[in-house]
Amino acid sequence: MSKLIEPRTVSGFRDYAPNVMIPRERILQTARNVYRSFGFTPIDTPAAESLDVLLGKGGDESDKLVYRVRGAKQEREEMGLRFDLTVPFARFAAKNINDLGTPFKRYAMGPVWRGERPGQGRYREFWQCDFDTIGTTANASDTEVVLVVNELFAALEIPRVEIRVNSRLILNGLLESLGIADKAVPLLRSLDKLQKIGREKVIEEMVREAGVSASQASQVLALAETSGTNEDVLRTVSELFAGVDNKSATDGIRRLMELLAVAAKTGVPEGRIKIDLSIARGLDYYTGLIFETFLLDLPAIGSVCSGGRYDNLASLYTKQVLPGVGGSLGVDRLLAAMEELKHPWLTGATTPAAVLILQLDADLLGEYQQIAKTLRDAGIATEVYPDTKKLGQQFQYAEKRGYRIGVIAGGSEMATGTVKVKDLTAKQETTVPRAELAAVVQKLLAGPS
Amino acid sequence: MSKLIEPRTVSGFRDYAPNVMIPRERILQTARNVYRSFGFTPIDTPAAESLDVLLGKGGDESDKLVYRVRGAKQEREEMGLRFDLTVPFARFAAKNINDLGTPFKRYAMGPVWRGERPGQGRYREFWQCDFDTIGTTANASDTEVVLVVNELFAALEIPRVEIRVNSRLILNGLLESLGIADKAVPLLRSLDKLQKIGREKVIEEMVREAGVSASQASQVLALAETSGTNEDVLRTVSELFAGVDNKSATDGIRRLMELLAVAAKTGVPEGRIKIDLSIARGLDYYTGLIFETFLLDLPAIGSVCSGGRYDNLASLYTKQVLPGVGGSLGVDRLLAAMEELKHPWLTGATTPAAVLILQLDADLLGEYQQIAKTLRDAGIATEVYPDTKKLGQQFQYAEKRGYRIGVIAGGSEMATGTVKVKDLTAKQETTVPRAELAAVVQKLLAGPS
Repeated sequence: MSKLIEPRTVSGFRDYAPNVMIPRERILQTARNVYRSFGFTPIDTPAAESLDVLLGKGGDESDKLVYRVRGAKQEREEMGLRFDLTVPFARFAAKNINDLGTPFKRYAMGPVWRGERPGQGRYREFWQCDFDTIGTTANASDTEVVLVVNELFAALEIPRVEIRVNSRLILNGLLESLGIADKAVPLLRSLDKLQKIGREKVIEEMVREAGVSASQASQVLALAETSGTNEDVLRTVSELFAGVDNKSATDGIRRLMELLAVAAKTGVPEGRIKIDLSIARGLDYYTGLIFETFLLDLPAIGSVCSGGRYDNLASLYTKQVLPGVGGSLGVDRLLAAMEELKHPWLTGATTPAAVLILQLDADLLGEYQQIAKTLRDAGIATEVYPDTKKLGQQFQYAEKRGYRIGVIAGGSEMATGTVKVKDLTAKQETTVPRAELAAVVQKLLAGPS
Repeated sequence: MSKLIEPRTVSGFRDYAPNVMIPRERILQTARNVYRSFGFTPIDTPAAESLDVLLGKGGDESDKLVYRVRGAKQEREEMGLRFDLTVPFARFAAKNINDLGTPFKRYAMGPVWRGERPGQGRYREFWQCDFDTIGTTANASDTEVVLVVNELFAALEIPRVEIRVNSRLILNGLLESLGIADKAVPLLRSLDKLQKIGREKVIEEMVREAGVSASQASQVLALAETSGTNEDVLRTVSELFAGVDNKSATDGIRRLMELLAVAAKTGVPEGRIKIDLSIARGLDYYTGLIFETFLLDLPAIGSVCSGGRYDNLASLYTKQVLPGVGGSLGVDRLLAAMEELKHPWLTGATTPAAVLILQLDADLLGEYQQIAKTLRDAGIATEVYPDTKKLGQQFQYAEKRGYRIGVIAGGSEMATGTVKVKDLTAKQETTVPRAELAAVVQKLLAGPS
């Protein structure tokens, strides 16, 4: 016999076993349902894109992250694996927007790949789950993004979240009024480090890297540090710009106010949305609304759903201007958080079915599958154990996998048209007529697990 | 302004626009639901595996098909993209089966990549959708596979299918009784060409390639050509082996008989399952049941769901013997077939939502989102148009995308607590109280589209 091949995964890649995959599919299905409920439509793009599409203008960080792909018979790589779903969407939009028309609302879900150093909870393959509206600058779309996030976490049964919103328009306005609008890039890069290195070091870095005065840096920082209730923050900022007549800032404030008003009207609970002017994220990309979503019971894990408004999605590929706004759910980070929070979806069960029909007699297989079909037709996922092993072994199998109910039927049950139903959680067994089985099981499953 | 990058996809790869993606997601969700209803559990494995895992013993066809992947900073490729979901499952099983225990029933869905020449309907990236039971040789599992396929096509609303089943055990039995069991590989390779090159050429090839006599070849062919009802075929084959006492053939016949009996008992319609001894597929792999699924209204497109029983899934990676049986739905081929058959799921709609709320007045956005929420809470996906464009443009948008219903509400509707509901198919408009909107819409959607 020849040597065995070690069945390992490549470093930074991983398998999803059933106990993780079951809640993961539930998360994806929940996101899909929520996105669809708002009229976002699915699209899909290939895992691999040509390198020039992926790397864009090149020379940036992404170049080092992108996995190269070549056919076995090719000499050189001409394509690479996508590192996010935004670049492929930009390429897709440039190619297809004339057919699709605007506004265009899409969601996309799938794996992305980054050749980064793997580590605790950091993998080279992970899923993204994005939704975007392009082709309109309407604040209705910004507002909707936040409503989607709110509904998403309600549907995920994680209501204790805080959606922190900000607008790049406000900071831009301040920079304009200070005459340092051209320093936005290095200033925001420094501001992004506020939590990590503290205000003094941020000011030092702004002076050093952006070439602004300490006073200018302090004012940028003061804006970011504006705190209090949403009303407090909006009042403070409105006062700050009262005498300045800065269009950008006025717009930003108005849009956030409208967003809060519509959200309140639509029943988003008080406190769910929080204006946080310190949020800086992804400077080169975002131009208006920006947001991050934190779990109140596990804020340290970072934002689990982020996004914002951008001026022009597809400018690398088309002259058509495609403004957009959207968000991205970090599926794998969320899953890790749910594990830590002992979320009820992570039951540890390794079966998606609730009922196991035990096999007492191979000659009764037709009966067992008939019983199973009755249950399946009633919407109850049901497995028939494939072998006539000892009942103890079959029960062990059922319990290890997390089946809730066992159904037992031998010759005497067949003769009387009954089955035994065993509640594997409560360890209780009852005999019921076959015609009543589905109703009995449904009632048991509606009870506590 | 710098030069634009052409937004093309790589040759052999494609985008899925909403009109295709909506039915595709429905197919995947249907398969997922059916697999789960039988107790198959989801797993996922990485897109990329190490080359030694992927290529196995090497030197075969797959080597030429596998896309090589390397990190930007790596010199050499050490991994490749999976070309099916079976090799990764074998690797997964070898790695994890001791934790998971047997029997183990899994499904997996995802893209696979093959560096083949692309062509009409042939892509280098396509989806597979597999389900398998490993760790048992029970005929209950073989039978279940066929039941799953039957339920799958019922759920896909394609009842006019024929599931053609065969058993490699029967042919093996014949070869044993003829003393040419060691010629199975070249014989089956020739037999597989029966439809293409005809019986005379197949016999010639068997004589030439397998080194059997013309009489032996004729007997192999005669078995494959046995035709008639399932009862006819089983009777003919039983008679053929009546005096021979061949365990393999007897087993194969018994297992097929049992499969048919259980299927009939479980309500699989007469004629859905057809014994077809000419099915030869994947010789090196399958050892028992083999099956293919044909669409009665489009047989020429080939099998849309195939599979069978194999002796030992993971022998390349572990000494543990893991017999299994399973099937694979060809999602993209099925989608192509559904398009050709004008299947009702392919409506051409590019929205997953049914209702569009038109925007008459930006100040009423809160009201619009409130109305939308009422509908969403009732399970009706609803989009709010983001801009206050002319109503004609908004209706155009709704009709182009396939919205079924438009909701219109301006100042006068707000004042009276009503909304206008427009059936975009029937071109009829009614005014209803807001409190009754969800019920009215549900009723309209239940009607013909």
